[in-house]
Amino acid sequence: MSEQLVGNLLVAQSGGPTCAINASIVGVIQEAGKHDCIEEIFGGLNGIYGILNEDLIDINDEKAKTIDMLKYTPAAALGTCRYKIDFVKKPEKAAKDMDRLFQIFEAHNIRYFFYAGGNDSQDTSHKIHLEAIKRNYPLRVIGVPKTIDNDLPYTDYCPGYGSVIKYDATTVMEVGIDVGSMATDDGSCCIIEVMGRSAGWIAAGTVLAKRHPDDPPHIILLPEIVFDQKKFLDKVKEVVSRLKYCIVVAGEGIKDASGKEIGADEKNVDAFGHPLLSGAADKLASIVQGELGTKTRTVKLGYAQRAAGHFASLTDINNAVMVGAAAVKAAVEGKSGYMVKIVRKVTADNKIEWTTDLQPLEDIANKEKLVPRDWISEDGFMPNEKFIEYARPLIEGEVKLPIKDGLPCYYVLEKNLVEKKLPPREK
Amino acid sequence: MSEQLVGNLLVAQSGGPTCAINASIVGVIQEAGKHDCIEEIFGGLNGIYGILNEDLIDINDEKAKTIDMLKYTPAAALGTCRYKIDFVKKPEKAAKDMDRLFQIFEAHNIRYFFYAGGNDSQDTSHKIHLEAIKRNYPLRVIGVPKTIDNDLPYTDYCPGYGSVIKYDATTVMEVGIDVGSMATDDGSCCIIEVMGRSAGWIAAGTVLAKRHPDDPPHIILLPEIVFDQKKFLDKVKEVVSRLKYCIVVAGEGIKDASGKEIGADEKNVDAFGHPLLSGAADKLASIVQGELGTKTRTVKLGYAQRAAGHFASLTDINNAVMVGAAAVKAAVEGKSGYMVKIVRKVTADNKIEWTTDLQPLEDIANKEKLVPRDWISEDGFMPNEKFIEYARPLIEGEVKLPIKDGLPCYYVLEKNLVEKKLPPREK
Repeated sequence: MSEQLVGNLLVAQSGGPTCAINASIVGVIQEAGKHDCIEEIFGGLNGIYGILNEDLIDINDEKAKTIDMLKYTPAAALGTCRYKIDFVKKPEKAAKDMDRLFQIFEAHNIRYFFYAGGNDSQDTSHKIHLEAIKRNYPLRVIGVPKTIDNDLPYTDYCPGYGSVIKYDATTVMEVGIDVGSMATDDGSCCIIEVMGRSAGWIAAGTVLAKRHPDDPPHIILLPEIVFDQKKFLDKVKEVVSRLKYCIVVAGEGIKDASGKEIGADEKNVDAFGHPLLSGAADKLASIVQGELGTKTRTVKLGYAQRAAGHFASLTDINNAVMVGAAAVKAAVEGKSGYMVKIVRKVTADNKIEWTTDLQPLEDIANKEKLVPRDWISEDGFMPNEKFIEYARPLIEGEVKLPIKDGLPCYYVLEKNLVEKKLPPREK
Repeated sequence: MSEQLVGNLLVAQSGGPTCAINASIVGVIQEAGKHDCIEEIFGGLNGIYGILNEDLIDINDEKAKTIDMLKYTPAAALGTCRYKIDFVKKPEKAAKDMDRLFQIFEAHNIRYFFYAGGNDSQDTSHKIHLEAIKRNYPLRVIGVPKTIDNDLPYTDYCPGYGSVIKYDATTVMEVGIDVGSMATDDGSCCIIEVMGRSAGWIAAGTVLAKRHPDDPPHIILLPEIVFDQKKFLDKVKEVVSRLKYCIVVAGEGIKDASGKEIGADEKNVDAFGHPLLSGAADKLASIVQGELGTKTRTVKLGYAQRAAGHFASLTDINNAVMVGAAAVKAAVEGKSGYMVKIVRKVTADNKIEWTTDLQPLEDIANKEKLVPRDWISEDGFMPNEKFIEYARPLIEGEVKLPIKDGLPCYYVLEKNLVEKKLPPREK
């Protein structure tokens, strides 16, 4: 057992919000309350972006009811950002950011730092961990996994993923019976675009909508599989001629043989240099309509899918809370420089349960886990039984949301700012 | 009291499916079972399109459990179509269709005909009613209102509408907290495209997501209000500068001052000659991003919104059942040539309840009810209190869906075809 580190805790969120990221923060906060070595619990507003402005809030000022109900509230209750401390491209700015960050840590006696996010955020946590060692500043840094993309390595899955595929599979099921119920002479096609830039986990998850072989989705296009227009059109044609309709799910980042994204708009890139995508479904629709003459409509779920708290997976929410709590336990035990990972186990009576373990952040940062090729059918258009066995347990259980006037009640923090101790940040 | 008409019943569905159209069919079927004058209950597959092929199924062959659970199953359980009997543009084909239809009615002793649908379907019902009189064929025709568009006149609202706005308002709320939680230097915008070609009822319904004045949606673009690009951009700019984000809801059919639809793709028209729209949100996003430089993303709910049975309005489903039952009661009482309309009443203790009444089909057919101008704010960007008072009761209550493996269970009919008595239809 490592020596006890007494001080304050700072928790923050980063990257795209999910249905479950607040649940992890609740896990951190509720576990932190159990440990005397943790004195104050601060929330960093808008991740590193806000922390650099010394925008910290006092979590103990918030209502316990609000904290508890945040479990079921989508989006990032503390605010989030896409802010990268980039020592490669902007070394001077990165060094300045790091100085400022440790001034803030020191000013507020931050000794525990928890950052919930995806690949880029784990990279940030890793850098902060290394910097603390370099500066000989006692700090325990634990990464909390979060990403609907489910592309972090080592962890069984990433909180947020279970909920997004529960909602997306439901949507595919519902759109499928809708489209299938409309009689037409020539058949029809509907293309549903889901998130997933390089990894096809989300698109793959919609296979769970299939209870019978001919159920939708009929084709799933994964970014992992090179898009072959002829094979795709042949498959659409075959499905439409047999069933009179075809439901296609497309991951937004599907690519052709040259590696070019089908829906890429190359003029726009995000803060991490990734191209911003928008139009895979519309592009595919124009291909199907143009080449086959089949009436084709599109659905683009966009942010709706990662925010759909009204139909979140209870398994996912519970695991997200567990992961947050495990991060605090590990830090109190003296660990730093790790990400909490989820470990799946099969019980004696053949049920799936999840526990946690730790993985060094350096193993995680900026690495990406794709859908394995042998989890996908030979023709590349459908995840197979291996995938289904993996994904199905993640969508079990429904949350019970409070409802007012027919709509969900989501909770917001009051966000009382902690008094600033430093001069404003120099830009 | 009119003389008793003994014979068989035919019920069918037409137009775009909804979450509640099956509930109306259940209302018809369950009420029909109570009346001895109704002998067999047939379902017409795929509306007029399938009836012309003599594709009738025997409803009494179906499991009672399936019939009951259809109330909560979206899409059209009997199948639907967009098929118009058009005496103006195609008089010969229309006359032939009418002959065929009455041959089928006669062959199967159909004396009660119920057709659930929107404007075009009520027109079809009206024509069949007139034709029956002309042919001296005893037939009772009652239209059952259904359309998410909510644009039928005389009825308080159209079943399906309550559910679509419950889901859309929830989505706006969820996307809103998601986008609002992402800190950016320059703010961001998200445009959510919802259905509604000429009437803005669906877009307007998302105002219910607002619990506080600054809650999303911040701008609602209705097809009833001419799209003014400058005013729109000024409003986006004002919202983004104040709140750092802006959620816009756009009805797919919004038009500019020349009457041209913003998202129109004029090459495509549907069976009724309406232009097929796809891109209002994408068009608006390119305007906002291009003119203001504000990062803008889009969500296009498409078919997902009208099929979202997992979050349907219980009020809507119950009223849809009531309307179906009322159609049968009216027909048994000797009425024909009417549509059932929903009538709102305020009880002594200030609660909203709904009953039904009848309206002649000729008053309904092909007429459209738009959102009244005095239900919209002066600047045209937001429905006002009058609208909210009208719409709020429609989204009350949640359905309790059976769930299996984390996803909804929807029910399908076995669809055992009734033996055909006529030669196949000549094309």
